[in-house]
Amino acid sequence: MKLSNDETRQIAEARSHEFSTRRATVPALEDILYTARPVLDHGFVRVVDYMGDDTSVVQAARVSYGRGTKQVTDDRNLIRYLLRHSHTTPFEMAEIKLHVKLPIFVARQWIRHRTASVNEYSARYSILDKEFYVPERSNLAAQSSTNRQGREGVLDADEADRVLTILRRDAETAYSDYLDMLNLDENDNVLSEDRSGLARELARMNLSLNFYTQWYWKIDLHNFINFLRLRADPHAQYEIRAYAEVLLEIFRAWCPISYEAFLEYKLHSTVLSRSAIAVLKKALRGERVTREDSGLSKREWDELNNQFQLG
Amino acid sequence: MKLSNDETRQIAEARSHEFSTRRATVPALEDILYTARPVLDHGFVRVVDYMGDDTSVVQAARVSYGRGTKQVTDDRNLIRYLLRHSHTTPFEMAEIKLHVKLPIFVARQWIRHRTASVNEYSARYSILDKEFYVPERSNLAAQSSTNRQGREGVLDADEADRVLTILRRDAETAYSDYLDMLNLDENDNVLSEDRSGLARELARMNLSLNFYTQWYWKIDLHNFINFLRLRADPHAQYEIRAYAEVLLEIFRAWCPISYEAFLEYKLHSTVLSRSAIAVLKKALRGERVTREDSGLSKREWDELNNQFQLG
Amino acid sequence: MKLSNDETRQIAEARSHEFSTRRATVPALEDILYTARPVLDHGFVRVVDYMGDDTSVVQAARVSYGRGTKQVTDDRNLIRYLLRHSHTTPFEMAEIKLHVKLPIFVARQWIRHRTASVNEYSARYSILDKEFYVPERSNLAAQSSTNRQGREGVLDADEADRVLTILRRDAETAYSDYLDMLNLDENDNVLSEDRSGLARELARMNLSLNFYTQWYWKIDLHNFINFLRLRADPHAQYEIRAYAEVLLEIFRAWCPISYEAFLEYKLHSTVLSRSAIAVLKKALRGERVTREDSGLSKREWDELNNQFQLG
Amino acid sequence: MKLSNDETRQIAEARSHEFSTRRATVPALEDILYTARPVLDHGFVRVVDYMGDDTSVVQAARVSYGRGTKQVTDDRNLIRYLLRHSHTTPFEMAEIKLHVKLPIFVARQWIRHRTASVNEYSARYSILDKEFYVPERSNLAAQSSTNRQGREGVLDADEADRVLTILRRDAETAYSDYLDMLNLDENDNVLSEDRSGLARELARMNLSLNFYTQWYWKIDLHNFINFLRLRADPHAQYEIRAYAEVLLEIFRAWCPISYEAFLEYKLHSTVLSRSAIAVLKKALRGERVTREDSGLSKREWDELNNQFQLG
Repeated sequence: MKLSNDETRQIAEARSHEFSTRRATVPALEDILYTARPVLDHGFVRVVDYMGDDTSVVQAARVSYGRGTKQVTDDRNLIRYLLRHSHTTPFEMAEIKLHVKLPIFVARQWIRHRTASVNEYSARYSILDKEFYVPERSNLAAQSSTNRQGREGVLDADEADRVLTILRRDAETAYSDYLDMLNLDENDNVLSEDRSGLARELARMNLSLNFYTQWYWKIDLHNFINFLRLRADPHAQYEIRAYAEVLLEIFRAWCPISYEAFLEYKLHSTVLSRSAIAVLKKALRGERVTREDSGLSKREWDELNNQFQLG
Repeated sequence: MKLSNDETRQIAEARSHEFSTRRATVPALEDILYTARPVLDHGFVRVVDYMGDDTSVVQAARVSYGRGTKQVTDDRNLIRYLLRHSHTTPFEMAEIKLHVKLPIFVARQWIRHRTASVNEYSARYSILDKEFYVPERSNLAAQSSTNRQGREGVLDADEADRVLTILRRDAETAYSDYLDMLNLDENDNVLSEDRSGLARELARMNLSLNFYTQWYWKIDLHNFINFLRLRADPHAQYEIRAYAEVLLEIFRAWCPISYEAFLEYKLHSTVLSRSAIAVLKKALRGERVTREDSGLSKREWDELNNQFQLG
Repeated sequence: MKLSNDETRQIAEARSHEFSTRRATVPALEDILYTARPVLDHGFVRVVDYMGDDTSVVQAARVSYGRGTKQVTDDRNLIRYLLRHSHTTPFEMAEIKLHVKLPIFVARQWIRHRTASVNEYSARYSILDKEFYVPERSNLAAQSSTNRQGREGVLDADEADRVLTILRRDAETAYSDYLDMLNLDENDNVLSEDRSGLARELARMNLSLNFYTQWYWKIDLHNFINFLRLRADPHAQYEIRAYAEVLLEIFRAWCPISYEAFLEYKLHSTVLSRSAIAVLKKALRGERVTREDSGLSKREWDELNNQFQLG
Repeated sequence: MKLSNDETRQIAEARSHEFSTRRATVPALEDILYTARPVLDHGFVRVVDYMGDDTSVVQAARVSYGRGTKQVTDDRNLIRYLLRHSHTTPFEMAEIKLHVKLPIFVARQWIRHRTASVNEYSARYSILDKEFYVPERSNLAAQSSTNRQGREGVLDADEADRVLTILRRDAETAYSDYLDMLNLDENDNVLSEDRSGLARELARMNLSLNFYTQWYWKIDLHNFINFLRLRADPHAQYEIRAYAEVLLEIFRAWCPISYEAFLEYKLHSTVLSRSAIAVLKKALRGERVTREDSGLSKREWDELNNQFQLG
């Protein structure tokens, strides 16, 4: 990731101001506010604003407790209780806003989370920069032969070379033809006075899905948690997971108690079906369990067995 | 509105802390942060947190403008342009959180706005206070005989007396029977050791819809504007309008440029239908317009005529 | 529940028409379409429209499968796979619309599910009927002394008598005073020509939370499942659970395969935290487990132990 | 648009079944159910399911009218009244489901409407077909020199040739390299046993934004109306407008009364700001109006003048 001089100056300018506030404030987030954290080859994530912290969750939950109740529960226990029992509304009371630069194919997965606010850079209005994603060799996964959605090992060196050459060459061509259709050279000067240039909203269709876009993305903590539960999961595509990893670090700086509860009750938890519960109970009583008696499908049995070593 | 000693102390405590932040900060909101602004006889509205201001709207809108565009538009013009053309997403980028105390029948209207986050005081867990709404005489509207939804003048003094007596008496009875079923006296002491007391989640059903509840309510500026467009409108019921009036003042302190644009383009604007446009054009050309030729219904014609004095 | 003659006639009328359609059609729902299923003392649930069935879920999921994939999975396995792995969007593709009559305090819980469409009977426009909920003796739960939210046993006969007398008397009073303020007798005739009658939107505030309201409620299958997971749970208040029970039966008639998967993977499943997984693994290996080593809170340990008899 | 043999057979199969239902049924939609209506060069729109019709809107609105009201308003007047006064909830009671094939850059605009349900063809799982959008010459708009977002005339013949050549060539290259990286030939046979093939989820990033994707899209009538108000507007990009035009025809077949009201009160209506109202009033009184006195910006004044010929 390389920021333009303009971007660098704007970030420094934004960071140079300090205000006095009575609002809940998180020093660990203030420290990194506005700065760009690199992701993939040209992407980044920046925290640009936030509202509330762990205490906002607690405060909202405690609206419920009035006359006739005693407040024995401390904040940490309360937050863990709420997350464990899917009392989700208090987690909606904290909010974060990020500036994200990401490849379009990642943006297409990301946007499926509808419970967020988004303002995206518009290629109808503006000209996209020449920035496209090319994976590291170690991330050039081979298609799994057994699982449609999966990756299986990485390409060997020769095939990797070939793929990287193609990706770079096609993106270069797409971009230079994009500029050509816009009747612009690389410095945004008009190429030929005899041509009018294709409308930006049309020319952009020639760019490929690995080109970078950017947006402002604002979400509350509850929906942030849902996003991370899905996108920080090992089954998520590597490229969006790379962003989720950075969001996890931001989460930890922002709301450390909720973060810890998230790891315990969401990210590293598991759901047992009714039949799986029965299998485990039986095994714990020392009885023999078999897939045939379990009511589980082959795949469910394998997953359960794999996790709990039923033997 | 009378705050309890506890509440007064908590507000003072919250206001006593000052933090340093790099976030957008609104001094006019900081001034009133956490303080309770009275509404109706026992209600209030308190701003308890916020994120962003007018510049957040501008900043989000400008993500769209990159290479190849010139930024000639100043902030005020941009905000007015966005609101006028229903570019709503930049207005989602600012957020506010309020603590509101309000009668249950008002809460039932309010909650129909689904695009907000809410944590309500729970009468399943807790005991409701003895606070119920009784209108001022000047707000004791008579049922309109022509419009189901309307009010028509106010009750005369005798009928008003009668109504106020009923409302107070029935609410008093409902509350004392609520406590009785809970097996509690007014100081929350157990009445009789021989009784167990009805579950709180059941006893509450005896309370009437003018009892007060309270909640934390968090919403973004775009949806805040939608709320105000509907609830600050003269057709809204007086009681929810009383809250909307206070929200308007908060809006003005928080985002003065957006507020001014809201008055111009939303609250005091009007929508002309295709047929109404045709009528006005004709009238402006000096031609005679009649309801018969207009394609408007009687009611539409009357509204248009009333607004523009078509003669 | 007693339907008025009008309602009975309208239902019969609606049921008397048969149309020809190419849409997915569920005979088991057609059989009960429009009919009212009683809930509590005056409530009901009626299915008034629906779109799609189990095959709609399958069809939507299979949009994903195109060239290069083989469709070996049968419908049942696919639906179970989707629900198990929280692939929720295919379940949004079926929709149901219900007409529900329910006490206001139940409606206030119900409406917190924001991802549904609602049109409620308006007491601003119309006059509410004299119908209020009074629990059966067996549901007159006592307040738990240990758990704020809980019920604990039922009231004894004397206390139950006293509570039922209060609930009936106060609701009767509230209603007759409601009519009085409206200047109406029980047949909706004007009581006195000398009074104008309080506006309906105000008079309604005198009614208590056990009065019945009604609404049309439309929701997709994914959000219907979320609603049921929370409201058919034993921790939900009895009164809303009574509605959830009826919705479960409707679910079974509508989408039997999804229903069965819902029981297995949602309603009767359990979530194991990271620490609980570690405890169970240890126990399955035959090692001794104790609360002290587990990292679990007292309450978590008790729940886990209670479910799996760790000894 | 050319359907595959498979698709044609599936549509015929779906259309061959007729069921008996008590639900509201729209013969004009049944006539076209499942059939594909072409859009652009390879796209289509198919209605695959629906729930309700104009009477569903009326029925929901009338839940509000109970005791003490008279039903004098006929259906058409009621629907027009509701749409005119932004009573939106009754329009949420009808629902439609479409199968849409569309270029990815159009899909990226479309998905910004968050209040719909979507299941998209997954290029993580599956192989995309070789279908990409190339505009007609008459739609090869030139970039406006005054308005960033606008088109201005069309390209002349030479420049059009050049653009079309580029678009076709780059898309051809992108697709053949896509297959190559997947280690597949055009018949999906493995190219070389020595290579493993890049994971599908990665190879797709080489495709450009004019490639076609497809999805199931389900939305209620209220949000359908919002979508059309924005996307059938002349300011929308031509390519998404082409889809909106087809949706308008479907709307007319589905709910003709709501459609007519939509044209009158939404699509062909105009919003007058507070200042614009004042200007028109003045002009109607025969007074002279000028931009200077009006409080309108230059652009607002031009728009108003343009529409109403203020002279």
